[in-house]
Amino acid sequence: MSARRLAVVGGVAAGMSAAARAKRRDPALDVVVFERSGYCSYTACGLPYHIAGVIPDHRALVMRTPEEFAREGVAVHVRHEVTGIDLDSRTLRVRDLERGRGRTEPWDALVLAAGARPAGAGLPGAATPGTFTLRTIEDAQAIRAWIDEHDARSAAVVGGGYIGLEVAEAFLARGLVTTVIEREDRLLTLVDADVAETIAGELRERGADVRCGAAVEAIEGGDRVRRVVAGGRAVDADVVVIGIGVRPDTELAAAAGLPLGPHGGVVVDAGMRTGTDGVWAAGDCCQTRHLLHDGPAYVPLGTTANKQGRVAGTTLTGGDAAFGGVLGTAVVKVCELQVGRTGLGEEEASAAGFDAVTASITHISRARYYPGHEPLQVKLVAERGSGRLLGGQLVGREGVAKRVDVVAAALHAGATADELAGYDLTYAPPFAPVWDPLLLAARAAAEAA
Amino acid sequence: MSARRLAVVGGVAAGMSAAARAKRRDPALDVVVFERSGYCSYTACGLPYHIAGVIPDHRALVMRTPEEFAREGVAVHVRHEVTGIDLDSRTLRVRDLERGRGRTEPWDALVLAAGARPAGAGLPGAATPGTFTLRTIEDAQAIRAWIDEHDARSAAVVGGGYIGLEVAEAFLARGLVTTVIEREDRLLTLVDADVAETIAGELRERGADVRCGAAVEAIEGGDRVRRVVAGGRAVDADVVVIGIGVRPDTELAAAAGLPLGPHGGVVVDAGMRTGTDGVWAAGDCCQTRHLLHDGPAYVPLGTTANKQGRVAGTTLTGGDAAFGGVLGTAVVKVCELQVGRTGLGEEEASAAGFDAVTASITHISRARYYPGHEPLQVKLVAERGSGRLLGGQLVGREGVAKRVDVVAAALHAGATADELAGYDLTYAPPFAPVWDPLLLAARAAAEAA
Repeated sequence: MSARRLAVVGGVAAGMSAAARAKRRDPALDVVVFERSGYCSYTACGLPYHIAGVIPDHRALVMRTPEEFAREGVAVHVRHEVTGIDLDSRTLRVRDLERGRGRTEPWDALVLAAGARPAGAGLPGAATPGTFTLRTIEDAQAIRAWIDEHDARSAAVVGGGYIGLEVAEAFLARGLVTTVIEREDRLLTLVDADVAETIAGELRERGADVRCGAAVEAIEGGDRVRRVVAGGRAVDADVVVIGIGVRPDTELAAAAGLPLGPHGGVVVDAGMRTGTDGVWAAGDCCQTRHLLHDGPAYVPLGTTANKQGRVAGTTLTGGDAAFGGVLGTAVVKVCELQVGRTGLGEEEASAAGFDAVTASITHISRARYYPGHEPLQVKLVAERGSGRLLGGQLVGREGVAKRVDVVAAALHAGATADELAGYDLTYAPPFAPVWDPLLLAARAAAEAA
Repeated sequence: MSARRLAVVGGVAAGMSAAARAKRRDPALDVVVFERSGYCSYTACGLPYHIAGVIPDHRALVMRTPEEFAREGVAVHVRHEVTGIDLDSRTLRVRDLERGRGRTEPWDALVLAAGARPAGAGLPGAATPGTFTLRTIEDAQAIRAWIDEHDARSAAVVGGGYIGLEVAEAFLARGLVTTVIEREDRLLTLVDADVAETIAGELRERGADVRCGAAVEAIEGGDRVRRVVAGGRAVDADVVVIGIGVRPDTELAAAAGLPLGPHGGVVVDAGMRTGTDGVWAAGDCCQTRHLLHDGPAYVPLGTTANKQGRVAGTTLTGGDAAFGGVLGTAVVKVCELQVGRTGLGEEEASAAGFDAVTASITHISRARYYPGHEPLQVKLVAERGSGRLLGGQLVGREGVAKRVDVVAAALHAGATADELAGYDLTYAPPFAPVWDPLLLAARAAAEAA
């Protein structure tokens, strides 16, 4: 290992995983991390629950503090923004945001883990005070403070993706009159229309107003937000969160001339190497590979970022590791509803060139005679002819997340629907009916294919 | 399809699945089922919950009644015992247990689905009134009635397998002073000693006395059971349930000259054919194939029985279907504890000729900052060198069953521990930590292998 100093840009999931892994593998390595926000190693996925009050103390969202990393020999500088990368001199331009001073930091190895930036700044009126995006602990704190200080009674969530749905749940939990505004004709476009409709039904049942097919025309109120106009109608909103997706934060990478992929992410190989000597990238700033169509994909999620950071920390210290790719596996809780997906939806599969069939069944989460069973819908997408599984979506009030993972495992294995139908899965009345919904769905998919 | 009359011996899981499937595929087929007990198509797995009172009405344990089957054209005769099979004349000797009359029934195709019989009749004092095994709805009703009519205060469960553990939970739920007596040095020998110790701890915490390494010497009391002597000590017991396993019920098959396997089950091929023309077998009376060591196995479970019955019903009507085999996947709830396993344990793997390593980690079921997370132990067994996964065991208070199924899916795929460590699994704070316990265990197993 020739590198003497590792610099990491971004100290959240991928960056801290890379830093910690590299230091553990090579204790002689000088490891320094620069993080723009005031916290390192925090869980962005926990932020909606901080807004909701489920996690009252924001410190619980921090996995390890800079002080804890320091004890492992990893120097983390929060409130430090990297403003430039010089590949020739192998230095970074770093700005200490507290002191307002810039400096130059050398590196032998560099990990770009700048993450992603929320979209939405361009929405008309997005700068109206009380309008937020949600990416950092500071964002969550600001939203909480705004609600309290302005005695907010109503809220609008712009965007019906994972974050929008979780924030809507949080607002409902806080007793706010909540409207979800989605430009597309349905929530969560990563699932099929019928699953999305179930989500909308859940939100409405909990008291939310859900408006799909409604593009934001204005966020209004002057010195404090009062309403959102979308699809020609105004919605009262004392607080607004925009959650219409994120874009890879690649400003530095692009300025340094690193190649970006079609989704805008930094291009990396399986070892998280950028192709530029000494430079790795990991997490939400990267594009990755989709395991089913083998093409580039951009699926910014914390679990992927952690895995990729670990791989980068291994390969940059001379180890052998590879990040294989993603299936786009994800799960979200929306009030009492659990929604999960993996692989390709029917439309995605067609777009990727597959001749796809979909089978959908609704069964129950436990034995019918056992208390507490809940309906569980399973949709499976398979390739016509071969029966090869391409994806799955599950929705229900219990038993979704890890059943999605069984489908993910089958996808990793390249299994057919018929093979999944023969899987020897757990059965006991409190946990599953004797024919697990997965098995019934697999049977239906095998017949359809 | 040449068969005109299908006779099925045994009307529970495998038998009714075969009958229903065959009739659906071939509506012209005359389908008749003979079931010794008073109920068909009942769930044996629900019986402990009937004893516990969780399922108060025994009718909830019956999936479909004879009347419902009759409407589908399947004639079910409960309280009818088949006493002999004549392969030459293709007839059965059937005894109507209500009327006490025998008769002869013809068949063109025969499915043996006689199930299994509980072991334990040979234990000293096993005939003492108040001593039961648990296999049928009548057994569960008799246990309930005995407890009520004899004002039972104490109970002993002989055997610490799945059924014994579930019955122990049921007795505790009913407020009985409960002792579990196990001949081996630990409960549930299908899991490793440390997992078994966790189970014992849970039972003790709930107030049960757990005595391992204690062989039953006597069940005593004369006209009603009063105590069990085991391991040299007497235990008060106003009711006793013996749950020391089952044996395939193959009396008829053996008398008819059908070959039995090393575990005593009827030998069948993947299409559930016995090798004797016109005769199929399915469910707990059969031996099956273990997918990991490819040898014969006897794993009598309801989900397998249902799958096998369905295969038999397909192939006997000229269809193409195969039952691939089992991994021994199972899950059991013991009070608040969930225990699951799939594939081979370390000892089983060694016995099957594998050079096996085990990795065990304890992590949490949800994100650490999310309320309700519980410790979750994951043990994985892998082949040394290749890293191929051989089995897994999980224990915790939530999130066990379907995580076991992810391991099962990986086993079906022949995946290595390293491959599992790269699986794209669901992550959201309410459902999993960012590194799912499965991924951490897989990483540990990959390193150990």
